[in-house]
Amino acid sequence: MRLQLSTWQEVDDYLKRTTAIIIPIGSTEQHGPNGFIGTDALCPETLAFGIGEETGALVAPTLSIGMAQHHLGFSGSITLRPTTLIAVVQDVVNSLARHGFDRFFFLNGHGGNIATVTAAFSEIYAETSLRTAGSNRPPLQCKLKNWWDGEGVQAISKELFGKAEGSHATCSEVSLTYFAYPDHVKTAEMHPEIAPTGPIYDADDYRKRFPDGRIGSNPKLASVEAGERLYKAAVRDLSAEWRAFAA
Amino acid sequence: MRLQLSTWQEVDDYLKRTTAIIIPIGSTEQHGPNGFIGTDALCPETLAFGIGEETGALVAPTLSIGMAQHHLGFSGSITLRPTTLIAVVQDVVNSLARHGFDRFFFLNGHGGNIATVTAAFSEIYAETSLRTAGSNRPPLQCKLKNWWDGEGVQAISKELFGKAEGSHATCSEVSLTYFAYPDHVKTAEMHPEIAPTGPIYDADDYRKRFPDGRIGSNPKLASVEAGERLYKAAVRDLSAEWRAFAA
Amino acid sequence: MRLQLSTWQEVDDYLKRTTAIIIPIGSTEQHGPNGFIGTDALCPETLAFGIGEETGALVAPTLSIGMAQHHLGFSGSITLRPTTLIAVVQDVVNSLARHGFDRFFFLNGHGGNIATVTAAFSEIYAETSLRTAGSNRPPLQCKLKNWWDGEGVQAISKELFGKAEGSHATCSEVSLTYFAYPDHVKTAEMHPEIAPTGPIYDADDYRKRFPDGRIGSNPKLASVEAGERLYKAAVRDLSAEWRAFAA
Amino acid sequence: MRLQLSTWQEVDDYLKRTTAIIIPIGSTEQHGPNGFIGTDALCPETLAFGIGEETGALVAPTLSIGMAQHHLGFSGSITLRPTTLIAVVQDVVNSLARHGFDRFFFLNGHGGNIATVTAAFSEIYAETSLRTAGSNRPPLQCKLKNWWDGEGVQAISKELFGKAEGSHATCSEVSLTYFAYPDHVKTAEMHPEIAPTGPIYDADDYRKRFPDGRIGSNPKLASVEAGERLYKAAVRDLSAEWRAFAA
Amino acid sequence: MRLQLSTWQEVDDYLKRTTAIIIPIGSTEQHGPNGFIGTDALCPETLAFGIGEETGALVAPTLSIGMAQHHLGFSGSITLRPTTLIAVVQDVVNSLARHGFDRFFFLNGHGGNIATVTAAFSEIYAETSLRTAGSNRPPLQCKLKNWWDGEGVQAISKELFGKAEGSHATCSEVSLTYFAYPDHVKTAEMHPEIAPTGPIYDADDYRKRFPDGRIGSNPKLASVEAGERLYKAAVRDLSAEWRAFAA
Amino acid sequence: MRLQLSTWQEVDDYLKRTTAIIIPIGSTEQHGPNGFIGTDALCPETLAFGIGEETGALVAPTLSIGMAQHHLGFSGSITLRPTTLIAVVQDVVNSLARHGFDRFFFLNGHGGNIATVTAAFSEIYAETSLRTAGSNRPPLQCKLKNWWDGEGVQAISKELFGKAEGSHATCSEVSLTYFAYPDHVKTAEMHPEIAPTGPIYDADDYRKRFPDGRIGSNPKLASVEAGERLYKAAVRDLSAEWRAFAA
Repeated sequence: MRLQLSTWQEVDDYLKRTTAIIIPIGSTEQHGPNGFIGTDALCPETLAFGIGEETGALVAPTLSIGMAQHHLGFSGSITLRPTTLIAVVQDVVNSLARHGFDRFFFLNGHGGNIATVTAAFSEIYAETSLRTAGSNRPPLQCKLKNWWDGEGVQAISKELFGKAEGSHATCSEVSLTYFAYPDHVKTAEMHPEIAPTGPIYDADDYRKRFPDGRIGSNPKLASVEAGERLYKAAVRDLSAEWRAFAA
Repeated sequence: MRLQLSTWQEVDDYLKRTTAIIIPIGSTEQHGPNGFIGTDALCPETLAFGIGEETGALVAPTLSIGMAQHHLGFSGSITLRPTTLIAVVQDVVNSLARHGFDRFFFLNGHGGNIATVTAAFSEIYAETSLRTAGSNRPPLQCKLKNWWDGEGVQAISKELFGKAEGSHATCSEVSLTYFAYPDHVKTAEMHPEIAPTGPIYDADDYRKRFPDGRIGSNPKLASVEAGERLYKAAVRDLSAEWRAFAA
Repeated sequence: MRLQLSTWQEVDDYLKRTTAIIIPIGSTEQHGPNGFIGTDALCPETLAFGIGEETGALVAPTLSIGMAQHHLGFSGSITLRPTTLIAVVQDVVNSLARHGFDRFFFLNGHGGNIATVTAAFSEIYAETSLRTAGSNRPPLQCKLKNWWDGEGVQAISKELFGKAEGSHATCSEVSLTYFAYPDHVKTAEMHPEIAPTGPIYDADDYRKRFPDGRIGSNPKLASVEAGERLYKAAVRDLSAEWRAFAA
Repeated sequence: MRLQLSTWQEVDDYLKRTTAIIIPIGSTEQHGPNGFIGTDALCPETLAFGIGEETGALVAPTLSIGMAQHHLGFSGSITLRPTTLIAVVQDVVNSLARHGFDRFFFLNGHGGNIATVTAAFSEIYAETSLRTAGSNRPPLQCKLKNWWDGEGVQAISKELFGKAEGSHATCSEVSLTYFAYPDHVKTAEMHPEIAPTGPIYDADDYRKRFPDGRIGSNPKLASVEAGERLYKAAVRDLSAEWRAFAA
Repeated sequence: MRLQLSTWQEVDDYLKRTTAIIIPIGSTEQHGPNGFIGTDALCPETLAFGIGEETGALVAPTLSIGMAQHHLGFSGSITLRPTTLIAVVQDVVNSLARHGFDRFFFLNGHGGNIATVTAAFSEIYAETSLRTAGSNRPPLQCKLKNWWDGEGVQAISKELFGKAEGSHATCSEVSLTYFAYPDHVKTAEMHPEIAPTGPIYDADDYRKRFPDGRIGSNPKLASVEAGERLYKAAVRDLSAEWRAFAA
Repeated sequence: MRLQLSTWQEVDDYLKRTTAIIIPIGSTEQHGPNGFIGTDALCPETLAFGIGEETGALVAPTLSIGMAQHHLGFSGSITLRPTTLIAVVQDVVNSLARHGFDRFFFLNGHGGNIATVTAAFSEIYAETSLRTAGSNRPPLQCKLKNWWDGEGVQAISKELFGKAEGSHATCSEVSLTYFAYPDHVKTAEMHPEIAPTGPIYDADDYRKRFPDGRIGSNPKLASVEAGERLYKAAVRDLSAEWRAFAA
């Protein structure tokens, strides 16, 4: 059930059944020579719709822009500063809390979001702890779940890509977006085949260390077929997780 | 050309042709008994893709959550505080400016965004005017364009809906989303047929004045067919506007 | 009744009659070769005193500095960043709300303030809508009224200045300040007679487009006599507006 | 020379002579049974105009609203939060610095502003010290001067009022405003004659300690004549101070 | 070498040798019935001094207050909101960067700081990536290192405490503070022996889940002797880590 | 009683006796050729422990980093921007207020903190005055006390150092830290013997006016013995002050 395609009366009805909601959160940033700039937003969005079909969960609109300062050396990348992203997460949660939502399942597509979104949860909880929360706000529970963390997904990634999976512009995430948008599959050579690895600092430093944007991956191995398997496994993993959280 | 489905190298190529970009911006808020909560985001998104096909314009991911504090009395509505939205617009523009973009065409779907987004533009320009902008930022031009403002669209709205068009949950916007998402067309009775009108203050006041969320409209008149006519007219109106801006 | 010249007991008495207040808001920015830098603050201040005499309205001290980033290319211009101005409007309203004021009539002298002040109103309403407003704050109504918008004023502007009225450093606003401060009438030639028009971005761009600061006007036509007619018409227009708002 | 009554070309000429400017800063807050709510803004404004006549100094528009949280228990009092006032002072100084002003003489009318305005100066200097100031901003010098601090004023206060001078709603400040606005002189009895003294915390606490708003004063002694003597002495004291600062 | 006990000339000399610095960061929060409220600050501070002796590293003053909103249900706990802590880390790093420091080794004593401090690093890097950093700031590298993460420490914790180690008010951290402050060793019974485990939300929820403050630990097992072994192992682990970072 | 070495149950017990607390606040900044960078934090910390022993007062962890923007021209100096320091003081007070503390005795070691910390108090009080404080927050009283202000200390300073005391890197503060850390006494020549005096603006200006960092002092006169006398006098002065405040 997509929030964007529902009426407010339908949301009223949903709230009689459950007060939990899925919020896909991603990023808009380079994903190497053959990955989409929207990869990190499209993955959780696609999966959230899948979980929604599987479980009846309500899916909020995707927060497509995340914390991606380190990617700004590559055209098309967009970042929110961490303090901006904290404010966004705060406002989204506080708006929904007014309607009675009290459990927020952030389905995340970007490792670079984890710290900031977790800090945002603390900023929100601190409103309760310091007694400055909106005067009728219920106790809230926020959860950040990376789509790739489940056992099913991990097993397929390992089986199909092994060491070439990498940590940015990974084979798995590129595959998943190819499955979701098969008309946009890209072809590109990788030099070297497997990208270098290293630490992450600012955007200038990043571009020097990782000249084509990838970290540790060879996404030439990505495919629609792999994406389909990953999609099914991820929907299964995450639906279970959601059911436990929303119960 | 959708930014989310492009690689960074494709954006590099685009920047050789033009340094302008379309950024759809909307809202997530109730739209009465038969309108989608995502109406204000889905309209500019749908049209931006149309303009992109028509003109080759690059389309950034939609900013789906806007300034909608007055709708918080209805379930599912989400707002950013104005100061949060200003920070978001600032970060998006400054990120893209680093890559060489210098003209920003915000295609807007929500009247309630106009003041805040315009203030955000001033906040961005003030960085130049006070000399605190990023040290290599070029002069920037930001434009806010409401999708419904063009002559073609206005003529159709008037012809089809006349006084029943209204100003929130309008027949035209509901029609446009029905055209984009025909599987989700809703049926609902309207009481009264044409909703009341009045000023807008906070969410509690809004709910009292406008009990089912509509202002001045009778969106029962909305249809897929009307949506198709509006879509075509709007793409035509806006493509011309975009070409002039990006030239 | 001027707030600055009243005691707190007199304000207590006023509050027994009405809980509305006028807050003049302007700007401090260049107004071309013969206009005062204070034009946009002096106009609403002068008129507010007039309305106060006419209707007994309480007039707060003028917020003399507004959002004028685009004028910073001309000496003496001062801006608040939009986020600063939002905070100022918030604090002023929240202070007065503590005393029981609940209707705020911002009499505005500067087009460049409209977006930011309107955004500030939403920031204030959002405190109610998100339940974070001061614990005993009543429902509030804020209104922004441009002094030049009334029928009486528009008719005189059109009659006296026609196309030479312009949109910055207008004949009407210069006339009104000449009427209020006849000892400071300035003489200056205009080249060209009618200033150019165009869009507004940052201060550097503005100075290039509008070399002497005016937009579209020929304020050489301004006079004390015109100012007097405009003053009387504006006080009449605005007193009616105020009475309706405060009722 | 009043900035509000000057043109930008006149300010350009002024800047050839000196790069210093006077900025009157006050407050809008209760001043007991017979003092104006605007006392703290009207005093420095009146004196700044006097200094301007005496020395040719340029006088910016008065910042009429200051830090007055402790007075919010009395109707009509308005405060900026300290962080808001810091932002205002920062924006005013940075705007003027763009034009070449580099010495800022804040003529202060309110003890409660001292800490916050001094903190604002440090916030501004920190931009230089941390290298984040606007890229062409010169080194700046800000000075806060209380109008009542000079020897001449102190001697008159002591002579005329002695122990009844007090520290809020003082005989001297009430006299000075009576001199400036003789048509608005108020009559009120004082109970007790001399108000109590004590520490300052929040507004609720303040109202309990100081039931009619005064601290330590008996402003029934205030008079137009005393105001005139104070005015002349203050203009003399402050003109000397200004000349030394601007030299 | 302690920054607090050095002169600025000694720091100048240090900068000729290395531009890295250790910044201990902790928290002020309850640590169960027998743990110090300062545990999380005292551990990294004590160890930083040890590393300093071992390697000559310069040690900044401890940031003793961290992100501890979830502990506010227990007396004496203090939190910074995440956004405040981000500002603090930013200011500390930017101040030191002005002197030429460019590598910042945050020695952390509190799991609850990790997200926020990592977000702060991104906020700092974003200044470079968006070109708004101080105009002469060098490229920076920030590292967060938890004191308990090294192999040596982990082995001892496992050997001595096994399952009773827990995750808050752990046997190891209590032991380490007992070693550092042997005169303050506390005696207290634990009911139950091993504390419950569970997720962390706001402070009210935390107190219900973890009634005496501990999570998963039995710190009755803590001892000065264990603390000494942990101290030595940690200094060894961390000195190696520091040397690699500072090289 | 040191908060850092207490358990939460011990704080609960303390709160039954008194709801006041001492918070040492200092700075991390150059103190001339023979003064510690930590002088301004170490002085109030040392004295707070002394007062704690004398009176049983609870002592919070020292806020070691203050407002020191003007010292950034000297290596090792660290500043918080005023707005950051305000947020820190706010969070510390609001955290402790949740536990029932309502009187906050900030024992200050740095003149440069006075304005900002005083502004922070007003920011905190304004939450009460504007009704936005945490919903169960009691009325609060905050006091800033400079350690050197007492009669006993002043008499010794005058007797021992006279005109050579100065206002930054004073003989007294250097002596007090020498007494507290006798193993770290420094030797350095002073040229000239007594440092120059003057106003304080930004860090570049400061370094030009005060080339070795001192203002008006000759801290070569500092000694452990003088420090001991000052320590005893200060503990006596401040214990009396604390008792009056906490009563």
